[in-house]
Amino acid sequence: MTSDFPDLKHQLQNKINQKTKPLGALGRLEMLALQIGLVFETLTPEIHNPTILIFAADHGIAQSGVSAYPQSVTAQMVLNFLNGGAAINVFARQHHLSLKIIDAGVNADLSNYDDLRHEKIGFGTQNFLDVPAMTLFDCEKALITGGTIVRQQHKVGCNCIGFGEMGIGNTASAAVLMHLFTKIPLDKCVGRGTGLNDEQLEHKRNSLQSAVEKYPTLKTPHEILATFGGFEIAMMAGAYLEAAELKMLILVDGFVCGAALLVAQQFNPHVLDYCVFSHVGSEHGHRALLNHFQANPPNPPSKRGAFSPPFEKGGREGFALLDLELRLGEGSGIALAYPLIQSAILFLNEMATFEEAGVDKA
Amino acid sequence: MTSDFPDLKHQLQNKINQKTKPLGALGRLEMLALQIGLVFETLTPEIHNPTILIFAADHGIAQSGVSAYPQSVTAQMVLNFLNGGAAINVFARQHHLSLKIIDAGVNADLSNYDDLRHEKIGFGTQNFLDVPAMTLFDCEKALITGGTIVRQQHKVGCNCIGFGEMGIGNTASAAVLMHLFTKIPLDKCVGRGTGLNDEQLEHKRNSLQSAVEKYPTLKTPHEILATFGGFEIAMMAGAYLEAAELKMLILVDGFVCGAALLVAQQFNPHVLDYCVFSHVGSEHGHRALLNHFQANPPNPPSKRGAFSPPFEKGGREGFALLDLELRLGEGSGIALAYPLIQSAILFLNEMATFEEAGVDKA
Repeated sequence: MTSDFPDLKHQLQNKINQKTKPLGALGRLEMLALQIGLVFETLTPEIHNPTILIFAADHGIAQSGVSAYPQSVTAQMVLNFLNGGAAINVFARQHHLSLKIIDAGVNADLSNYDDLRHEKIGFGTQNFLDVPAMTLFDCEKALITGGTIVRQQHKVGCNCIGFGEMGIGNTASAAVLMHLFTKIPLDKCVGRGTGLNDEQLEHKRNSLQSAVEKYPTLKTPHEILATFGGFEIAMMAGAYLEAAELKMLILVDGFVCGAALLVAQQFNPHVLDYCVFSHVGSEHGHRALLNHFQANPPNPPSKRGAFSPPFEKGGREGFALLDLELRLGEGSGIALAYPLIQSAILFLNEMATFEEAGVDKA
Repeated sequence: MTSDFPDLKHQLQNKINQKTKPLGALGRLEMLALQIGLVFETLTPEIHNPTILIFAADHGIAQSGVSAYPQSVTAQMVLNFLNGGAAINVFARQHHLSLKIIDAGVNADLSNYDDLRHEKIGFGTQNFLDVPAMTLFDCEKALITGGTIVRQQHKVGCNCIGFGEMGIGNTASAAVLMHLFTKIPLDKCVGRGTGLNDEQLEHKRNSLQSAVEKYPTLKTPHEILATFGGFEIAMMAGAYLEAAELKMLILVDGFVCGAALLVAQQFNPHVLDYCVFSHVGSEHGHRALLNHFQANPPNPPSKRGAFSPPFEKGGREGFALLDLELRLGEGSGIALAYPLIQSAILFLNEMATFEEAGVDKA
């Protein structure tokens, strides 16, 4: 994307530099404004109908003691979302973000709830300690469904979308996907999820190590996703791909959403150009995952020069906006970071230039 | 403050823990909600008439080549504020924050501008390379004026206030104040301000070192502030003190505002209990200044345990909300972080409990 618009990039940077502030003084917000302008291919970007989709599903692996909460919580939290009582409801209301809940595969009959979008692939995945989580057919179906839902949102005028997830056990699934796609050692990918203690964490690590060893011949991203993924993760992967295809601005939440993006990246690396990373959370593997995406979380002070130009690193132009030790999921990091996206757009569109304001330059 | 309300603190933490999320999963937002509840002495905090005051003034030291911009920019930016074209105008509009601009001592006749609050102590300070920046009388006058302005805002129903500044040369003044009050070596306090190159930075460091050596017998905070401060810095110091006295929630912007808070801290250490640090910026000394306040900026990963309880550090319960390499001043960091303050309040007041939502616990 970026390389297709060298002139636009130059014009955007020039527009940013004309604003009444010292060069670069809005820091990462300036990089964000540049990215948004490039995604929307305009000097005057605007967001319309910003939407968060929450994909919910259950995981067979949850039966093997890898989560601090029982599987029943997935369905209960879906009802909490529908009733407006969860954190994501609060933050989405605060910032006027549309919120849609999708049953991608919850292990409960939720067919009576009209406000829920019914795309259930199954009543939870299989336990991948025994058999692959899902069939290749169901995996493909989930990928396609995710894309379809995004396309429908785009049709009703949405150009900025974020994905959240709910699924007891899904950090286990995400950790294995991260390990297999990034080659980062498994123990650097496995974390405490909703709150495992040391002993439970050790059990989770050992279980996932056995699971990885059980399937030594997996090759394609489809095979890996079907074996270790979740219905919500597969659906999100399809959703990321379609959103990038439609040139939407994509907001990325935490660890599980990052793992789904990693899956999408296997199919189309350019999906990352459309992504804004909302936060680095406290789930163990998240910072390493962001580093893999070259979505630099805030640098430690020793590595940060006050005047390093945004893009000199030679890597991707991304970064995580917040670093608040969140580990909730639900798309909550997206909603919390959303005002910064708007701020980047607003300063680009509304701030006076040195010339307009009659302010002397350096 | 905190120690006066052991029961309230316990009740607030209990309320936070009952919300439908894993314990601690909202990270630093939970610490923020606790602090806000303690500041307002309630389980159901609300913000009314949130306001940013921008104090503008000029600095004699600006004549000695310590800034990348000419002194004329201070007055020009004040007019930009009044016309709504600066970054802070954009962000304050975005979040419905009242914005008031105060002429604390700009080196220009601005008496014709009705929207400006006229509290000019003088046409800029003296150059402290030659003589003290201001008299003790003017210093006291500025402190009192800052307090008066805050008291008037409080009277019209404002319970949450933030301060911003505009003053070419004021990072020089702030750096010396930081050095003298914290004993941190001067070169760790001096930064590039609006954009000095290496050579100019060296000149700024050397100039400020000479200035410090010129006044070896300064003792009281008043003397130090009068010698090296600015009218806007002194006015902000008085404003912080009064806001704490009135038990308002105080939002702290970047490096210069931090130096003003440091002055206030000399007069009343408890002022910090009311302060939320909006961001860590890229001005050289800012991170060290926040560390001095024990307002921990985001920890490097090696020092961060996923489940470290918020207050085990034994220090102050503060932290900086954003880390976006901002270095603009104007209160811009406050405005950008403000939605997170609201999010903390909203989750505390609006999220369902496990019991209300019928969600199983861990």
